[in-house]
Amino acid sequence: MGRVSDRRRILRFSDHGGRYRADTLVVEEPLEVQLNGDAYSVTMRTPGDDVDLALGLLHSESVITAAADTGTAKHCVDSDLNVLDVTLRVPAPPPRSRFSISSACGACGTDNIAALWEHLTPSLRYDVAADSFVVPVETIIDLPDKLRASQRVFDRTGGLHAAALFTADGRLLCVREDVGRHNAVDKVVGWALREDRLPLSETLLAVSGRVGAEIVQKAAMAGIAVIAAVSAPSTLAIDLAARWGMTVAGFVRGGHCNIYSGFERIAEAGDQAA
Amino acid sequence: MGRVSDRRRILRFSDHGGRYRADTLVVEEPLEVQLNGDAYSVTMRTPGDDVDLALGLLHSESVITAAADTGTAKHCVDSDLNVLDVTLRVPAPPPRSRFSISSACGACGTDNIAALWEHLTPSLRYDVAADSFVVPVETIIDLPDKLRASQRVFDRTGGLHAAALFTADGRLLCVREDVGRHNAVDKVVGWALREDRLPLSETLLAVSGRVGAEIVQKAAMAGIAVIAAVSAPSTLAIDLAARWGMTVAGFVRGGHCNIYSGFERIAEAGDQAA
Repeated sequence: MGRVSDRRRILRFSDHGGRYRADTLVVEEPLEVQLNGDAYSVTMRTPGDDVDLALGLLHSESVITAAADTGTAKHCVDSDLNVLDVTLRVPAPPPRSRFSISSACGACGTDNIAALWEHLTPSLRYDVAADSFVVPVETIIDLPDKLRASQRVFDRTGGLHAAALFTADGRLLCVREDVGRHNAVDKVVGWALREDRLPLSETLLAVSGRVGAEIVQKAAMAGIAVIAAVSAPSTLAIDLAARWGMTVAGFVRGGHCNIYSGFERIAEAGDQAA
Repeated sequence: MGRVSDRRRILRFSDHGGRYRADTLVVEEPLEVQLNGDAYSVTMRTPGDDVDLALGLLHSESVITAAADTGTAKHCVDSDLNVLDVTLRVPAPPPRSRFSISSACGACGTDNIAALWEHLTPSLRYDVAADSFVVPVETIIDLPDKLRASQRVFDRTGGLHAAALFTADGRLLCVREDVGRHNAVDKVVGWALREDRLPLSETLLAVSGRVGAEIVQKAAMAGIAVIAAVSAPSTLAIDLAARWGMTVAGFVRGGHCNIYSGFERIAEAGDQAA
């Protein structure tokens, strides 16, 4: 079974300033489900219970109705934990793709992110690593309050995700809400596209929830170099961000935050005084 | 623009017992994006900024790179807010589907849930409405603590969703974690399928996050009549659950909870003494 969590080096800002430490992140990796040896779907998931995941997914989609509808269900080769082949005793449906990142990558079936990164990178039009602006950590820490203050619907329903674009000095450009976290990001990027503001250089993306690989990919596509999230990032989100030269802040709440990648863009009060 | 929130009648359990009241829920509805008049994808989303959503999505998927790549973007007919047609000045990609619920429904492009429900219902094999067991509200209220206590990874990473199956008297059957909320549900259903426990009669599904339409659909497919969630449900989740005769509890936290549908399965302390 693959790891469900993994360690990364982070820069933690607390009341005592910034300090590097190790932190534990949830693992996110693609799983390609094959039916009788043919590709069916790709899901971004946390390793573990892959057979249950595949069977539950196939059941929800009316492909199978009982365990007896399947024969074997096993990872394709010993060295590759990210392809699970299920043999069916019932007719196989046509393939479908579940996440937009998957349709772009074609790399799933690798147990490291190198191939995934190599497949995603050519679709990027902007070099976010070259966006070398510096953000005071206080600007990052203040974003969630500004995001929350600008949300129109959240306080009434408690059910909405938000995404917002801010200038490097923390001025709000655009905020959008949606029941789907990815939709909220699509909406702010769509706004920027309509306004001919792409690439979004020297711009911060704030999101109300967690940061998975798909959010990082959407930000990279729009030329956004800095993402600040109220909640946790995944390993794949951080690994892609690090390779693309992006800065990801997580657990931005209560006056604290964690920086997971792109440390060089973060300025402490001491830096500014120097 | 469609409504972003809507009112529903709920049964709120607080320190003073259960009381019916109106509550505001976030709206979830399908949006079908068409390219040059042909179906491209269906996304479950909150109405509003549909053009931004479509343009951002198309940008993330490398279909367009600038606003100039598109012509018009408009809802198909005045009476139908759920189909947005975008004309392209660049080559159109093949269609793709984004959510599993969409591949099952084929009903998207309607601005009410009736057709969606009619298309999803035939795929259900179990009559959850007929599962008439009664659950003490205290059992519901205790589920999140039990769910949290059984999560292995959450406390280390803060990044995982969990789903768990419980018996009607609150005994844990199975718990699974994943970076994806839907994956965690697929994993517990896949476990039940492997164990030949379907349909999951007199069984509670607890989830750590929000409840959207897709979670309700997955539960209904598995014959689960009662869902308890730590966070908010969407309108579409509740409307589907109500039509299928399912009970949904939300905001189950701090000793309180809201019941959104299937009130008849919830027993108060007074009911039991009677």
